[in-house]
Amino acid sequence: MIDVCLLGSGGMMPLPGRWLSALVVRHNGKMILIDCGEGTQIPLKMLGWGFKAIETICFTHYHADHIAGLPGLLLSIGNSGKKEPLTLIGPPGLQEVVKGIMTIAPEVPFELHFEELPAGESQSLCAGDMELRSLPVDHSIPCLAYTMELKRKGKFDVQKAKKLSIPVEHWGLLQKGETVELPDRTLTPDMVLGEMRKGLKISYCTDTRPVEALAGFIRKSDLLVCEGMYGEDEKYLKAVEKKHMLFSEAAKLAVQSEAGEMWLTHYSPSLSEPEKYLDVARSIFPNTILGEDLLKKTLHF
Amino acid sequence: MIDVCLLGSGGMMPLPGRWLSALVVRHNGKMILIDCGEGTQIPLKMLGWGFKAIETICFTHYHADHIAGLPGLLLSIGNSGKKEPLTLIGPPGLQEVVKGIMTIAPEVPFELHFEELPAGESQSLCAGDMELRSLPVDHSIPCLAYTMELKRKGKFDVQKAKKLSIPVEHWGLLQKGETVELPDRTLTPDMVLGEMRKGLKISYCTDTRPVEALAGFIRKSDLLVCEGMYGEDEKYLKAVEKKHMLFSEAAKLAVQSEAGEMWLTHYSPSLSEPEKYLDVARSIFPNTILGEDLLKKTLHF
Repeated sequence: MIDVCLLGSGGMMPLPGRWLSALVVRHNGKMILIDCGEGTQIPLKMLGWGFKAIETICFTHYHADHIAGLPGLLLSIGNSGKKEPLTLIGPPGLQEVVKGIMTIAPEVPFELHFEELPAGESQSLCAGDMELRSLPVDHSIPCLAYTMELKRKGKFDVQKAKKLSIPVEHWGLLQKGETVELPDRTLTPDMVLGEMRKGLKISYCTDTRPVEALAGFIRKSDLLVCEGMYGEDEKYLKAVEKKHMLFSEAAKLAVQSEAGEMWLTHYSPSLSEPEKYLDVARSIFPNTILGEDLLKKTLHF
Repeated sequence: MIDVCLLGSGGMMPLPGRWLSALVVRHNGKMILIDCGEGTQIPLKMLGWGFKAIETICFTHYHADHIAGLPGLLLSIGNSGKKEPLTLIGPPGLQEVVKGIMTIAPEVPFELHFEELPAGESQSLCAGDMELRSLPVDHSIPCLAYTMELKRKGKFDVQKAKKLSIPVEHWGLLQKGETVELPDRTLTPDMVLGEMRKGLKISYCTDTRPVEALAGFIRKSDLLVCEGMYGEDEKYLKAVEKKHMLFSEAAKLAVQSEAGEMWLTHYSPSLSEPEKYLDVARSIFPNTILGEDLLKKTLHF
């Protein structure tokens, strides 16, 4: 089970009634945040999941609307009593940027670990039980798209377990993926579990053009959170110039990548009524949802 | 005439329903902002005075809750079309701090001028038609209190003007403080204006203990905006330790300094119901107002 919440749906600047785009994902009581613009800590507080369980913060890139809230959030996480290290992940330059903005919040009561991801290739790393992957995308400065996957173990094969004479009292641990040491032999999960099954996959793609590699990278996302900076197809040239996407481009990406559901986000401040253009996106990808502040969903296997 | 708006009333961190403490002052279409914490640009947008007329931003000190909103605000001011220089004013270290936090917003389309004020003595400078003064106060890092004064010229002395045979058509300009060159002589405002009269004075004091010099510095403020981090007198030791003020200390400062009216602000996040302690302050200084987000007032001569 994964809980997901879109904290805000705006791009460029926070607005009255529209926080900046950021996604928080919770699994097994641990939280991963993607992006932290000015004010992001406020909807995070409204959400009520607490600050202390945030273990990882990923940045797509270092424009102010995606990272300016970091000093304040880290101070608030500190005030929540957290003492364990927190990992910051982002494109190259992460440490330097964080050092710069943390001049106004030098005393954070926990360690910061830095994971600078390459700007030229995809990368994979673990964040709790999740597999986190990055893909360099196409924006005016180095920028990454992310996927988070929770793998699902294979089915427990009762026939195999019986054939191997594994006592029933050990089935539970093996099913959880744990190894069991017996006096005469070692039982490992692969002895009784079938092929890995499709898990849960969440993708987050802002600020970018719909580059070719993207569809493959986010393929078969249960939830695709994708930027839709402009609603009108007439803004195509602007989207190309500013390295953003139209609603229709995001919807095509959802179709190509066989997404289960797509949430649009990162609306331009000029897009005051995104609902006007929802049909444009739904005519291409019917499972489009208009992202809005504090939009939540729980994903199950 | 001066318009004043308290953009927020909180300290430490922005909260749902309570922006961080910051004051905006408008005179003759020009705006001065004091402090710019995370999110300050949002109530400023709600206020509706625009961003373009902001000419000066003063910082009391460089804790995140007073300056973290600067990158975002400067970008929004840039988006408003401003091209004229903007002056930043604050304690020593200003340029270095701003350089650090502006790593995430390197391209602002107007010049920034820096005025680093001494941490050891009071300083005076002009901001538009206003006289801006600073006083070092007592916080955990160098911190300044500010006053803004709009001077009021003396009364026009009709008898003097007649005695000096000044033609009536020049009275208006002289009254406005302008010099008039005639073929045979030069007319200056001092020839017809009386003594300077009491103008308008606004003071802004956060984050500090009520140090001795403060009452003299803010003396006879028409409007004193003063921190009240804690409502309960029982929090005295905490206020001393954290270098903040109680409601009752702010009220005593208002009495000592003969303020016209005091707005309390910069409430601790733990102070969820400041109204509970309003009577404590009013029993000492009856003209106490509980600061709240977007509290406005227009001051007249």
